[in-house]
Order: sequence, then structure tokens, then C-alpha cells
Amino acid sequence: MTTPFLSISRRTRQTPFSRRVTASGVKAYTVYNHMLLPTVFESIEADYHHLKTQVQIWDVACERQIEVRGPDAARLVQMLTPRDLGDMDTGQCYYTPMVDETGGMLNDPLTLKRAEDRYWISVADSDLLLWIKGLAYGLRLDVAVTEPDVSPLAIQGPKAEELVARVFGPAVRDIRFFRYALLPFEGQQLVVARSGYSKQGGFEIYVDGSDLGEPLWDALMIAGRDLEVRAGGPNLIERIEAGLLSYGNDMTRENTPHECGLGRFCQTRSAIGCVGRDALLRVATEGPVRQIRSIDIAGDALAPCAELWPVFAGASQIGHISSVAWSPDFTTNVALGMIARSHWQAGTAIEIATPDGMRAAVVREKSFI
Amino acid sequence: MTTPFLSISRRTRQTPFSRRVTASGVKAYTVYNHMLLPTVFESIEADYHHLKTQVQIWDVACERQIEVRGPDAARLVQMLTPRDLGDMDTGQCYYTPMVDETGGMLNDPLTLKRAEDRYWISVADSDLLLWIKGLAYGLRLDVAVTEPDVSPLAIQGPKAEELVARVFGPAVRDIRFFRYALLPFEGQQLVVARSGYSKQGGFEIYVDGSDLGEPLWDALMIAGRDLEVRAGGPNLIERIEAGLLSYGNDMTRENTPHECGLGRFCQTRSAIGCVGRDALLRVATEGPVRQIRSIDIAGDALAPCAELWPVFAGASQIGHISSVAWSPDFTTNVALGMIARSHWQAGTAIEIATPDGMRAAVVREKSFI
Repeated sequence: MTTPFLSISRRTRQTPFSRRVTASGVKAYTVYNHMLLPTVFESIEADYHHLKTQVQIWDVACERQIEVRGPDAARLVQMLTPRDLGDMDTGQCYYTPMVDETGGMLNDPLTLKRAEDRYWISVADSDLLLWIKGLAYGLRLDVAVTEPDVSPLAIQGPKAEELVARVFGPAVRDIRFFRYALLPFEGQQLVVARSGYSKQGGFEIYVDGSDLGEPLWDALMIAGRDLEVRAGGPNLIERIEAGLLSYGNDMTRENTPHECGLGRFCQTRSAIGCVGRDALLRVATEGPVRQIRSIDIAGDALAPCAELWPVFAGASQIGHISSVAWSPDFTTNVALGMIARSHWQAGTAIEIATPDGMRAAVVREKSFI
Repeated sequence: MTTPFLSISRRTRQTPFSRRVTASGVKAYTVYNHMLLPTVFESIEADYHHLKTQVQIWDVACERQIEVRGPDAARLVQMLTPRDLGDMDTGQCYYTPMVDETGGMLNDPLTLKRAEDRYWISVADSDLLLWIKGLAYGLRLDVAVTEPDVSPLAIQGPKAEELVARVFGPAVRDIRFFRYALLPFEGQQLVVARSGYSKQGGFEIYVDGSDLGEPLWDALMIAGRDLEVRAGGPNLIERIEAGLLSYGNDMTRENTPHECGLGRFCQTRSAIGCVGRDALLRVATEGPVRQIRSIDIAGDALAPCAELWPVFAGASQIGHISSVAWSPDFTTNVALGMIARSHWQAGTAIEIATPDGMRAAVVREKSFI
């Protein structure tokens, strides 16, 4: 299959950074929350090496914010997730699996507590806004649920702290992992969080007002010239090496958080009010019957998978692969897949039905990095 | 801006027809409901001429179905839309603007009544499933809300009836506009509706089970060889000429159905239960203050717009353009845009701020075709 072009329209929304992304030579996009998400600049491999050694600026405006605000905000946000938000403080970011009444994953956003009665939910690729609005309407909750004009810009890579500190000041260095601070840029206080969709370290800046997008992009590019800063984006290879899950790729509404290996983010017993609580209590006790694992697939470089690849042990299908990429650093095909309990032990030999034929593979204990 | 590539992954879902679409030489896609939607085969212009003279097969599997089934199904579906569904019969398809509690458009699907307690909602590009599930949960309604394995395949063009009759039999010719019949294919009864996203006439076949996708595609291609059947897709030029709206392009949650010129599909007074009823009653009486119009933009061919283009009358902005394409048949730029009441009269001269500079334009009485 030759790589197809993307037809762009208003429906595949531009971001506050789109003109800078275009000027930086973006080669490919995906569409995420009805918005453009840059995926390739030089090449996936070149972008990967650069991310692991330097610093990149990522247009992740597609991580749209849902603001939940009002007297019932805390109650409503707790309804969405089996993670216990009871002792969450303003200034914290929680990774929050969000589930429906069957315990099926609807999204896996970062939730930011902005105030006792105000949350931002930084969503993965589904219109979670509609689920939240539906619940709020049906239950007559006293909240406003909106998508504010807030667009995250991620700064990722080993030199990210240095770059962000140059623009926002030394207070950046004191921000702990999954915490945020309000720091000034052009007279406005922006949420600067130590978070991001890579394992190279970095920050996400919540650009509050589209007009600030280009000035902030430019300030970072100028400040980072000697750091070899470049435009980048979530990198397929690095995120699979890191075991970072992608909603819609590695998990869908079919899966519980426990199947996704997210049990540590579920305190289902104490998450009173979570709409998926009844459905998840049993799985929380007994554990899932299949779970996502990092997998090492032998042989030559495989092209990324566009649909599930069946996983076999002998004649039995015992799972599927959902994400794969050739890793230059590990000189193997790094992958993520859902594997049956019978075969998920580290070191288990399995076989993958790839478009290039059957391939030997091994289940790993942990992610690659 | 050079045309970028699309990065394909499991998240941009394949369809039951994807292998045939690839073999047919698809050149570009958009992403629609987290699924691939082919947009270009030969070229937008060549595809357009072919659509208007021959017959095409369109992979519109991305028009996902939401099935609402159970004792409260009729009540829930009426909650979604200001269209009065009171006298809808099984076998009918209704174009149904769907709105939230503020009267803002959430989607503009075709709703099919399959039985007294069973509806299919064939959705445009938003996760309407989540809104419906949220309402059903919050209101404790007795329904199941699911996305079944049903993928529409559209047959569009002046020779569509001939082609579909060759495969499904002469009963096809008796299907009235926006009605469907259950007709056999390979031993299964499929919904065959006279509908589709063009004004060239045609049908949408609801392929119930992915396994039937390739056999049906092949049967149609073989039966239509002498009709010059080809793969195609919703055509940007033809749909703008026809005034067919695109959710996310021409209208969003910001707009009421009345602003979209869909007042004739709203019987807000009698649509008891519609969650947007209170919000829409006033606009239903007084009319909207702006509305979508077909617009003729003078001068050379303009590239399709990727974001809203402001519309001016003198120094005042009085609207925006949301869709535009060069029409070979009308030798002008055909467009759709939202225009203030003060300037929406047919024949009004306006000016458009395009990326190519200011252009003279005229508001039209009706669509081009």
C-alpha cells in the first residue's frame, strides 16, 4: 500500500501552531479529536534519534481540554473514572482511565485539578465531551461542560527542562512529575506541567488563548537554537519502546483498564460514584483474563500495523498485536499487544501472523525503555 | 502548503472494503469517525465528472451505525432530535438534526427505523454514541446502545439504479426516496435505502457483517463493468454544488439547525421530549440571525479552505465561508458559508477574505444543483 495523502478541511481542524508546523516541513499527519496531529517531520527514525538526544516542540493541540466547572464538578469527574480522586490537590495532574457503565475504556486522559470546582480533562481520541454532557444532562448536575480555547504544546527530550526554564524561568525546575505551576508568558499565567507522551522527560504547556500559540512557539525556537530544538511529534517508535498506550490503537471500549495494565490507576472500591464501579469490582479482585504486554518480534523491519495482527501459540489464537515499529536502538521490532493470561508470562514464545508471514516473538516483562 | 501524507494506524480504522479501495488506486483519505474515508481516486475533478455521468461505489463504512434498541428506544431517539418522529414508520429513513440542551448541533445523521423498538442512527463525524449512552445512563432508560458491525456502501450516479437492480433484483426500482427495503445478497437480507451524499441519485447498502464487504463490492464491480462503474467517494465539488452540508465543516456545536437551514426538519413544538426543545422554541418562532447560504465566488480557481474565511460587506464582517471548490461545470468557485440575516438575500454582493486576497462573491437563492 503506497502512503496516501490526507485531504484537509475545516473538519480536520487547524491548531494555533499549524502555520509554524507547516513552515517546519511537516510531512505527515494523523487526525486526532477532529484535529491535525503532526506525525513525521524528517522521518520517523530521524525524529526518533533527535527526540532521544535533543529537545522537540510538539503541536499536541489535539489533546483538547474539557472543562468541567460548577458545584457538581468534583462529583461528576469522579463518576468518570475508577481512580479515587478524593485526595487530589489543585495543581496535580492524574492519569485517569475513564470508563462506561460496563467498565469499558472511553478515554485515558490526564485530569488537571484547577480548583475545587474546576477540572480540565486533557483527552485522547474520542469525543468524551459528549459522554460527560450526556451524564450531566441526564443526572441534572449543576455543572458547565465546555471545550475552552486551550491548546497544549509539548516540549519533550533530555534538554526540555533547560529550554522551558529559559522561557518560563527557574521555577520550571521545581515542578514535580505530574504537577503543574502557573507561570507567566507575555503577561498571562499559563499552566506548565511536567508531563508528556514520551519517556524522554519534558513539559506540556497549556496555551490558554490561540493568539499566544505563535509567540510561544517562536520564543521556544529562538531560546533553543543552541540546543538544536526542532519541531516533532509523538513518535511511534519511542512510544512503543516506552510502553505508552494509545487509545484507539492499543485499547478501545472493548477493554477494561485492568486489561490495559492500568489497574494501579484504579481504586475501584473507594472510587464511590464511578459509573463503571459495579462492573469493575469483580475484575479488580480476580484480575483480567488478558492484558497488554510489550512484545519483541524477531526478523526484519515490519511496517507499522494498520489493523490487529493475530497472535498464536501453536494453533490457538491467544491475542493480537495493536502497535509495532522497527526500533533502531534495539534493532528489533518493538510491539504492544493484548495477550491471554495463559501466555502473558515474561519470556513466553509466541507467533505473530504479520502481513509478511508468521514471525517468532517473545513476551517481555516490561517495556523496552 | 504541500499536501501531507496520512499516517495510518489501527486508530484510523480500516473498513470491510479497504483492500478493494486500495486495489482501486485510492490517492487520498480523510478520517471520519476514527475510520478511513476515501476522498480521491483519479482526481477530484475526474471523479466529479465520472460521478455525474456514470456510477460509483463508495466506501462510506465511516457512516457508523448506532443501534438503539429496547423498550425506551423510541423515547430516547426522540430526545435526540427536534424532528417529530411520532409518525415515522418502520422502513423509513429520516434526516435528523441532533442537538444538545442548548440547541447546538451534535450530528446530522440519517435515522432508520428498523422496528418499533429498534433504530439505526447513521452518523456524521462525531462520537454521538457517547452522548446517547450518557443520556441513557443518566436517565436510567431501558435500552441497549451499541455500534453493530454494519458498514454502509453507497452506489451513486445516474446509473446507480440500473447497477443495484442487477445485483439485488427489480424490487430496487420500487424503493422510494428515503425508504429502504430488505433485499437478499448471498442468503442474507440487507437494508438497501434510496439515499446518499450526492444529488446524482443512488442507494446506500447497509452491509450487515464485515465478511460480506468484499463479495458485495466484487458483485457490483462485475455487474457494472459495461456501466463503467468505478470506486469513488463523497465528492467535494459535487456536494458543495448540491448544497449538502458537512458536519464539522459547515456546522458545529455552535450552530442551531435553523442556522443550518434545517428548520424544515424541526417540528420543535410537537417534538416532545427533545432535550433541545426549550432552547429551540424561540429560534423556531423568530428565525435565526444567520444562516448557511450557497455562494458564488468570482475569479480563478481557489484551493479548498482548511479554515473559515471571513466574509465582509464593506468594513463589517457579516459571516464566513466554510467549504469551497472550483466547479468545472459552473466555471466558478462554488461555496457554502454562514451569512448574517442583513446580507443573506439572494443577489447580495459580498467580499471574501481568501488566502489569495479579497474576492467578490454573490449570495445565491439556492444551491447550484
